[in-house]
Amino acid sequence: SDTNSILILPGDGIGAEVMAEVVKVIDWFQDNRGMAFTVDHDLVGGAAYDAHGKPLSDETMAKAQAVDAVLLGAVGGPKYDDLDFSLKPERGLLRLRKEMDLYANLRPAQCFDALADFSSLKREVVAGLDILIVRELTSGIYFGQPRGIEDDTSEGNEGGRVGINTQRYTSGEIRRVARSAFELAKKRDNRVCSMEKANVMESGILWRQEVQWVHDNEYPDVELSHMYADNGAMQLVRNPRQFDVIVTDNLFGDILSDAAAMLTGSLGMLPSASLGAPMANGRPKALYEPVHGSAPDITGQGKANPIACILSFAMALRYSFDRGDAASELEAAVEKVLADGLRTADLTGPGGGDAISTSQMGDSIVAAL
Amino acid sequence: SDTNSILILPGDGIGAEVMAEVVKVIDWFQDNRGMAFTVDHDLVGGAAYDAHGKPLSDETMAKAQAVDAVLLGAVGGPKYDDLDFSLKPERGLLRLRKEMDLYANLRPAQCFDALADFSSLKREVVAGLDILIVRELTSGIYFGQPRGIEDDTSEGNEGGRVGINTQRYTSGEIRRVARSAFELAKKRDNRVCSMEKANVMESGILWRQEVQWVHDNEYPDVELSHMYADNGAMQLVRNPRQFDVIVTDNLFGDILSDAAAMLTGSLGMLPSASLGAPMANGRPKALYEPVHGSAPDITGQGKANPIACILSFAMALRYSFDRGDAASELEAAVEKVLADGLRTADLTGPGGGDAISTSQMGDSIVAAL
Ligand SMILES: CC(C)[C@H](C(=O)O)[C@@H](O)C(=O)O
Ligand SMILES: CC(C)[C@H](C(=O)O)[C@@H](O)C(=O)O
Repeated sequence: SDTNSILILPGDGIGAEVMAEVVKVIDWFQDNRGMAFTVDHDLVGGAAYDAHGKPLSDETMAKAQAVDAVLLGAVGGPKYDDLDFSLKPERGLLRLRKEMDLYANLRPAQCFDALADFSSLKREVVAGLDILIVRELTSGIYFGQPRGIEDDTSEGNEGGRVGINTQRYTSGEIRRVARSAFELAKKRDNRVCSMEKANVMESGILWRQEVQWVHDNEYPDVELSHMYADNGAMQLVRNPRQFDVIVTDNLFGDILSDAAAMLTGSLGMLPSASLGAPMANGRPKALYEPVHGSAPDITGQGKANPIACILSFAMALRYSFDRGDAASELEAAVEKVLADGLRTADLTGPGGGDAISTSQMGDSIVAAL
Repeated sequence: SDTNSILILPGDGIGAEVMAEVVKVIDWFQDNRGMAFTVDHDLVGGAAYDAHGKPLSDETMAKAQAVDAVLLGAVGGPKYDDLDFSLKPERGLLRLRKEMDLYANLRPAQCFDALADFSSLKREVVAGLDILIVRELTSGIYFGQPRGIEDDTSEGNEGGRVGINTQRYTSGEIRRVARSAFELAKKRDNRVCSMEKANVMESGILWRQEVQWVHDNEYPDVELSHMYADNGAMQLVRNPRQFDVIVTDNLFGDILSDAAAMLTGSLGMLPSASLGAPMANGRPKALYEPVHGSAPDITGQGKANPIACILSFAMALRYSFDRGDAASELEAAVEKVLADGLRTADLTGPGGGDAISTSQMGDSIVAAL
């Protein structure tokens, strides 16, 4: 299609700061690469709660359903810690994921050569690391019923309550995210490792069987292996480069992708894409967000690194706007400023040079384009 | 009490080899430190399945209930991969944990100075690391009902099945493991960090509230913090030394303790203790096992490192037999052989010296005593 519609939801904390830099990048592609964007702004998370009394309004939800790509900053902050569960900033994000049915969350964990020394891992263990975690994002224990906190007066239960959550995965839910993983692997090193706890959870057994079924029936040429998630956590620490694509459920994906992100030493650099089924125009429902959080401790100080959010827009160029060329161009611009030694505060550290600000980093990337 | 009763369950893979070295250590304490042990041997896991058609017989279960300490090697192996869920080697171990009600699983993650370079993390990040993960071991999604794989013919469910597991935590279950964590912290650096996903799971909210309750009412002088488990995984990779005691649920504990174990670079060195309520003689129900698995790839080759299993016996000396002095003596002997440069095959690596065998390591530790 000719126009590319975007809904920007900066959210809380540093979300607004980093998103301001993405807007510069969008403008650049509009002015210089003949792409037409319509950009709308709205609220999510604590910011939406402050304005509307809930973390995502129905109007915003409807807008998100209608655009080609939602760009989200971050949600959450200590100010909202005591809110009721259903009003917490996170619920806004979870509602977007669930109602847009964004079942495939793509989280690349890539170690940028210029930054390999920022990792707590040895350079030789992480240099060149490039893995992709595909996390199921719309089901599992995040959304299963029954759930809640109830009274429980059974004998010996001091405190008298019980907390319940339910993991439910249908075969169809597993198969569709497995297909995403296999498709992505074909464009990479052609290897998928699926992680679960099939040794203790029946939902893990079903997970393993359905991933294997998709492999055997549809992607026999992709190499598939299975690993228990605890061993997966170990192997990510021991030798992360053994992996190409990892596919796993919502909760394991949450934990393992955060561990993998931290391996790279570049948390402020890592983007993500959450993709659903194709819309009428053939494009997938899509939401893009940095892996980092809202970082209330540095909010408003110009210290935030906008690269994760800018690289999330690069993923939008690739997956929503079918402009892999433009995505690569943007990624190259980011690598150039890093190679030039430009660093935001998160990447200078003791003995490092002077840090540049959030907006200086955004400007530098635009200049490098 | 005068006699100390032990049930040895070597289990599968390298379990028998490493346990043979523990027996030498038990004999040494019997001969030289005036301790009386009665030692029985039995089967668990695949070995029990081969003999009895199930991974733990009722007779063995009854013996485990009656002794002061169960010493377990490891369970599992590829030979048993296709067994029905209820017959898998792991079910034997899970039955022991559940029926003995071993709710507090203590997993120290300690970086031995002589071995710090084996970690994939930088020496300066892990040197001197000494954290203790207290994992809830008898509840949560490992044991909750309903569970299973069912037919599910709801519209659009390709494959027609659903896999279900349930996380259920009662307030009483949370409080008792929290107490274990606070008690242990008092003997260490007096700090507990509790991990859950209270931002997305109600069982996590209850977890946080009950841990806080135990703190406020019973351990106000211990420092308590809370962290989301995904952030916990990140922080363990980024800066593990920030932690003293971590308390978390069964599933998060499984993943996070394995990641923490791998940080140390000394997986073959790490012991664990699983403790329950006091028995009539005042000693807790207890099972001790190395953190490493059955390692079928090196079974029977004399390559296994017996130290994790020997240090598990040191934990038994401390927690079951009330002989902290003997435990420290054994731990010092292990440190001495390491300082002397003795290494099993897992700890030599490229450029390392000659490896000694499993039994040579056991003999060396006994000689150092
Ligand atoms: C903010 C929170 C709800 C979210 C999650 O748990 O999925 C975050 O940790 C993430 O990984 O995107
Ligand atoms: C063997 C398996 C059932 C077990 C678990 O998942 O608890 C193991 O991974 C562990 O951590 O002791």
